[in-house]
Amino acid sequence: MEQENKNKSAFGMIGLGTMGSNLLQNIADNGYSCSGYDINTKQVENLNALNQDNIHGFSDLKAFAESLNSPRIVMMLVPAGKIVDSVIEELLQVLDKGDIIIDGGNSHFTDTERRFVYLEEKGYHFVGMGVSGGEEGARKGPSMMPGGDKEAYKYLKPVLEKIAAHVNGDPTVAYMGERSAGHFVKMVHNGIEYALMQLISETYEIMKKGLQMEDSEIYSVFKKWNEGRLKSYLLEITRDIFAYKKKGEDHLFFNDIKDEAKAKGTGKWTSQAAMDLSVPVPMIDIAVSMRDLSKYKNLRTEASELYPDKKEAAFSNNEKDLENLEEAFYLSMVSAYAQGMHLLSQANVEFKYELNLAVIAKIWRGGCIIRSEFLEDIYAAYQKDSSLEHLFLNDSIHKSLIKSIPGIRTVVSNAALHGISVPTFAVALSYFDNVRNKEMPANLIQAQRDFFGAHTYELKGKEGVFHTDWENPEH
Amino acid sequence: MEQENKNKSAFGMIGLGTMGSNLLQNIADNGYSCSGYDINTKQVENLNALNQDNIHGFSDLKAFAESLNSPRIVMMLVPAGKIVDSVIEELLQVLDKGDIIIDGGNSHFTDTERRFVYLEEKGYHFVGMGVSGGEEGARKGPSMMPGGDKEAYKYLKPVLEKIAAHVNGDPTVAYMGERSAGHFVKMVHNGIEYALMQLISETYEIMKKGLQMEDSEIYSVFKKWNEGRLKSYLLEITRDIFAYKKKGEDHLFFNDIKDEAKAKGTGKWTSQAAMDLSVPVPMIDIAVSMRDLSKYKNLRTEASELYPDKKEAAFSNNEKDLENLEEAFYLSMVSAYAQGMHLLSQANVEFKYELNLAVIAKIWRGGCIIRSEFLEDIYAAYQKDSSLEHLFLNDSIHKSLIKSIPGIRTVVSNAALHGISVPTFAVALSYFDNVRNKEMPANLIQAQRDFFGAHTYELKGKEGVFHTDWENPEH
Repeated sequence: MEQENKNKSAFGMIGLGTMGSNLLQNIADNGYSCSGYDINTKQVENLNALNQDNIHGFSDLKAFAESLNSPRIVMMLVPAGKIVDSVIEELLQVLDKGDIIIDGGNSHFTDTERRFVYLEEKGYHFVGMGVSGGEEGARKGPSMMPGGDKEAYKYLKPVLEKIAAHVNGDPTVAYMGERSAGHFVKMVHNGIEYALMQLISETYEIMKKGLQMEDSEIYSVFKKWNEGRLKSYLLEITRDIFAYKKKGEDHLFFNDIKDEAKAKGTGKWTSQAAMDLSVPVPMIDIAVSMRDLSKYKNLRTEASELYPDKKEAAFSNNEKDLENLEEAFYLSMVSAYAQGMHLLSQANVEFKYELNLAVIAKIWRGGCIIRSEFLEDIYAAYQKDSSLEHLFLNDSIHKSLIKSIPGIRTVVSNAALHGISVPTFAVALSYFDNVRNKEMPANLIQAQRDFFGAHTYELKGKEGVFHTDWENPEH
Repeated sequence: MEQENKNKSAFGMIGLGTMGSNLLQNIADNGYSCSGYDINTKQVENLNALNQDNIHGFSDLKAFAESLNSPRIVMMLVPAGKIVDSVIEELLQVLDKGDIIIDGGNSHFTDTERRFVYLEEKGYHFVGMGVSGGEEGARKGPSMMPGGDKEAYKYLKPVLEKIAAHVNGDPTVAYMGERSAGHFVKMVHNGIEYALMQLISETYEIMKKGLQMEDSEIYSVFKKWNEGRLKSYLLEITRDIFAYKKKGEDHLFFNDIKDEAKAKGTGKWTSQAAMDLSVPVPMIDIAVSMRDLSKYKNLRTEASELYPDKKEAAFSNNEKDLENLEEAFYLSMVSAYAQGMHLLSQANVEFKYELNLAVIAKIWRGGCIIRSEFLEDIYAAYQKDSSLEHLFLNDSIHKSLIKSIPGIRTVVSNAALHGISVPTFAVALSYFDNVRNKEMPANLIQAQRDFFGAHTYELKGKEGVFHTDWENPEH
C-alpha cells in the first residue's frame, strides 16, 4: 500500500445527484478530502460551486481516479440496473487492482452477488452498501448497511462511522455480512418500510372514515403516539404532514395529492425474495398490492358507484376506540418488523451471509427511514438470544403483545363491519393468529393436492411420504 | 408436407410418467396412433405392457422420431426447468425443420418465451401448453391451454379437441395466444387454485374451531354447497375427503396428515409475476404465504403455548351462521377468480398475447382443477363485454355480490374477535372494500415518500409532478 498522499482525496464519489453531493459534503465536514465525478457536467459544476477546499469535482474519470489516495475508495451512487455495470466497466479502465468499489445504490441483491464474484476474480474489492435516510440523512447522518469484502471494510470503517447517524454514541453503520448481505438487508429494510407506511395510511383511513375525526384530531393522535412506545420517524413525518398547509389555504396540503401510490420496486423485491425463500411476509405483500391497487383509479371510481358505502353509524369515537387503535397499531407494527427479521434469519441460513440480527437492529435505530423506539426492543431481543427464531417468542415483546390482542381484534372487527378497508391490520392479526396456531388447516390442502395431483403427503408421527386413492375408500 | 403414412404415429410423447402415459392412452382411445419415449426404460416397458396396438414405446430417440408422421408432433411432459432445454437440444438432433414441439409441463412463462424465440429462429414450431386436470384429467379429458405457434396449432387442434374434456359439447381446449400465452394462462389458473384451496381450508377452520361443528356436519355443508352456486371440483373433492376413512378406523383419514402444505411453485410465480405487472392479487399472495407459514411447525407450536386461545364461546352455530359463511365464501371465491382474470387482462396489454378472456373462462369450465359453476358466469360476463375491466363491474355478478356483503362482514368480524385465522376471507373483503374505494389513503403514502425521499407526487386536477419541502411550511 502506498503512503497516504496529503494532496490526494480519501474518498471518491461517482454520481453527484442530491444524494451523492450531500454524502460528499457530509464526508468533507468530517475532515476527509473528497473527489466527485459525474457524466453530467452540470452536476460537477454544482459540486465545485460549493467552493469547499476539500471537495473536488471532475468531469474526467481518469483525472478523478488520479486524484484519489491508494487503495482508492470509490463509491457509486447511480441508478440501479445496467448503469451500475457500465460504470464498473469504465472504472476498471482507470482503477488499480486492490482498489475498493462501493455500490451505494438500491441494487438488487442478485446483481450485487454477481458483481462481487466478478470483481473478486479481477482483483478488486467490492462492497454492496445499502444507504437509508434520504437526502437529509445523506447530509446529516444516514444509516448504512455495507456487505461484501470484509478486508475492504477496514478502510471504510473510520469514514463511514464518522458520517453515519449516531444513537447513544454508536454509529448507525456496521459490516453486515458476506457478498450481497448489505443490499439484502437494505431491501428488507425497505420492505418493512412499505408495510409501516401502508399501516399508517390505514390508521388514517380508520380515523377519518371510521371514527370520522377531523384532521386536527388526527394530528393530535399522531403527535401523541409519537411521544410514546410508537415513536418513529415515519409517525413523526406523518404528524408533520398533518400540520402542513400552503400559505393562505386552510386545508391540509396532502389532501390535494392524488391517491395513487408509486413505488421504486424494493418492496416488491422483498416479497418476491421472501416467496423464493418460503418465508411468509404477508404485511409486505399486502402493502405492495395495495400500492398497485391504488393505481386503478378508474376501476375504483366505477366500482364505488356500484357498491356505495352504507350510511351506517361510525364507530363510537371515544377514548376506548383510540386506545384500541393504538394497541392494534402496536401489534401490527411489531408484526411488520417481526416478518422482516424472520426473513433475514432465514436468508442468513440459505445464503450463508453471517448476519448478526442484533447489529442490524442496532444500526437501524438511527438515520434510516424505519428508525423507531421499538428497534431498541428488537436490539435487546437479539442481544439476549442471537438465534431467536421469531420476535413473538421474546419474553418482553410477548408481555406487550398479550395486552394488545383485544385492541386489534376490536379494530379489525369494526372495520370489517363498517366497510373500512384495513388489509394490513387484518393480515397482521391473521398472521399472528396463525403463527400461534399449532394445528393449521394445511392438512386439508395436502389431502386436496394428493387427491387431484397425487402429490403425496406426510403423516403425523410416521416417517415417509404417502399417496391415497381418495376416490376408492378401502372397505 | 409428406403424405400421411398409415404405419406411422400421429402423436409422440416424451416423458412416460403417469401424466404422459395417461394422456397417450387418451389419445389412442380417440383413434390416433401414438409413440412414447422415456429415458427410463422401465417407463417404456410399462407403456408397451399396456399391449395396445396403436401405442408404441421407444427407448431410442431416433427410432421414436422415425416412427412419427410428418410434420411430427412431439409433446414433452418432463419436469420444468433445465431438463426441458436439454430434451429440446436432443430433439433437434432427430427432428426436421417444420416439426412441432409442445411443452406440456408447468414451465415458467419466461422460459417458454425464450424457447419460442430460439426454436422459431431454428425453423421449428413451438407450442407452450398448460395442461390441467391431474392424472385423472389426462386419462379422461384435461383442460388444455396451448399458446405460441398459431400455424402449428392447426395440426394439433383435431387431436386436442378430441382428448379434452367437453362441457355442453364444447372441448376444454383452445388456442390461447402468442408465444408464452399458454403457460402464462396456466400459471394464473394455478394461482387461482392456490387461493381457492386456502379459502376452503379456512372455511374448514371456521366450521371446526369457530362453529365447533363435527366432521359429519362439515361434510354435509360441503355436500350442500356443491349442489348450489358454489359447485366446483375443489369443493367436490373436499366433500369426498370429509367422507374418507381408512378401513376399521372411525376418524377421517385426512386428520392424520401433517399440517404442513407443500407447493411446486406455480402460485408463487403468479404472485411474483403479478407484482412485476403491478396487478394486485392479494388472495393468491396470502395463499402462498400461508402455505409457507405452515412449514414453521416448531415456531407455531412454541407460539401456541405463549399465546393460548381464550376460552371464549364459539360463534352461535345456527342456520344464520352457515348462511353468512356461504355468502362469505361466495364473495371470496368471486374475488379470487376476479383477481386472476384482472391479472390476465393486464398481462395481455403488457405482453401483447391477444388473449380472449371469454375463451379462457370457457375452457376452464371443464377438465381443470378450478372448474366450477361460477365459470359459467365469468364466461357470460366476458362474452357480454370482451374488454370488461374487472368482474366486479359485471351486472349480474354485481347483483349477487351485493347480497353477499353482509355475510362476509359478519364472518370476518367474528373470526377476528374469536381468534380464528382467516387471512383469505379478510383479504378478500379488504380487497373488495378498496376496489370500491374512490379515495384510498395512498395520498398520504405519496406525501411520506416525497417528505423523506423527494420522490415527488401528482396533484388532483393538475398536470405535472411536484415536490414540497415539508419541513419548511410557507408562511
